Amino acid sequence: MAQFPKPLGRLVGELSKLPGIGNKTAQRLAYYILSLPDQEAEALASSISEAKHTMHYCSVCGNLTDRDPCEICSDPSRRDDVICVVETPQDVMAMERIREYQGQYHVLNGVISPMEGIGPEDINLRSLIVRLQQHPEITEVILATNPNIEGEATAMYIARLLKPSGIRVTRIAHGLPVGGDLEYADEVTLLKAVEGRTEL
Amino acid sequence: MAQFPKPLGRLVGELSKLPGIGNKTAQRLAYYILSLPDQEAEALASSISEAKHTMHYCSVCGNLTDRDPCEICSDPSRRDDVICVVETPQDVMAMERIREYQGQYHVLNGVISPMEGIGPEDINLRSLIVRLQQHPEITEVILATNPNIEGEATAMYIARLLKPSGIRVTRIAHGLPVGGDLEYADEVTLLKAVEGRTEL
Repeated sequence: MAQFPKPLGRLVGELSKLPGIGNKTAQRLAYYILSLPDQEAEALASSISEAKHTMHYCSVCGNLTDRDPCEICSDPSRRDDVICVVETPQDVMAMERIREYQGQYHVLNGVISPMEGIGPEDINLRSLIVRLQQHPEITEVILATNPNIEGEATAMYIARLLKPSGIRVTRIAHGLPVGGDLEYADEVTLLKAVEGRTEL
Repeated sequence: MAQFPKPLGRLVGELSKLPGIGNKTAQRLAYYILSLPDQEAEALASSISEAKHTMHYCSVCGNLTDRDPCEICSDPSRRDDVICVVETPQDVMAMERIREYQGQYHVLNGVISPMEGIGPEDINLRSLIVRLQQHPEITEVILATNPNIEGEATAMYIARLLKPSGIRVTRIAHGLPVGGDLEYADEVTLLKAVEGRTEL
C-alpha cells in the first residue's frame, strides 16, 4: 500500500495536532493547502509565524497583544476605575462584544485547578495585586471567570485575597441564558437564577 | 470595542479561508496556535511551506508526490498492465486503502464539467492517451471517477476516446454500499444495483 509522501504526511500530522481537527479533516485541509496558489499557502504559513513572533502578553493586563501595553490598557478613553478579571484573551473579546463594558481588564491566562496542579502562583494573579496597589483609582474588581468549578474557586480565592484592601469585588451573575428554557435548565443554574433574582 | 490585534486578525483570516473552518473555529485555532511553544507553531508553519515547495504532480501519472516519478509509478513490484483513472490524489489513497489493487494510476486532477467551463483539455487527460500509446503492455483501463454527473460524464468521455484503441475499458460498479439499507437507498443507486447484478 502506498503511503503519504513525507512532506504531505508531515503536514497532515501537524494539522491533526490542532484541536478539533481529526486525521480525516487534516488530510482534507492538507490537500486543499497543496491545491492553493503558492502565495496563498505562503500567506497561511507566514501568518502563523508572524502571529507567533509578534504576539505576546501585555505587561500590564496579561492580554495577548502585538504592542505593549496593549490596545485596551493604552486607550485613554476607557474608564480606569474598574478592572474585569477574566481567564483568557478570548474572554476579553467576548466581553468586548457586549459593547457595554468600558473599563480595564486583567487576564489570568489560566485558572486555579488543584486537580491539574495549577495553584495561584501559576496564573497571572500576583500582577493584579501589584496593579491594585499602584492604582488607588481602581474601586471595583469584576470577577468574570467561567461559571464552572475552577472558575468559581478562582473567583472565591481572588475575592478573599482582595477583601482586606476594601476594594469592591463583584461576580458576574449566574442565571438562565437569554432565550433559554426554564424547563431544560439544570438545577444548579435555576437555583442560582432564583438566588440572584432582582427587584423589578 | 477593542479589535483583534493585527497579526492575530490576519491569522484568523487566513485560517478561516480553509474549507470547513468558520470564523469561530479559526479564532479557536489561532488562540491555540499562539498558546503553543515556539517550535511547535514553527513546525506547523514550516510543514505548510515545505509541503507546498516539495510536493508536485508526478510527470507520469499526475499524482501528488515529492519525487518524480512518484512512489507508485517507480515501484517495480506493481502490475504494469492496468491503469486506474481517478479524479484526485485523495482518490489514489482511497484505492490504496483497499489493499487489493496493484496496478498503476492516472490522476486527472479534475473532472469534465461544462457547468464550470472545465473541458477535456483542462484535465490531465492528454498524458493518459500518450501513456497508453507508449505502453502497449497496458491492457485495461479502470475508470474510477466519482459516481456523480461530472464523474460519469468524464468516464463516458474517456471510454469513447479509448474505444478505437481496443484497450479494455471498465467502470467501477455502482450499487448499494456494504452495510447499507435497501429501504433507504435512492432510486438511481438501487436501479444501478439491479442492473449491475452478478451471477452467484
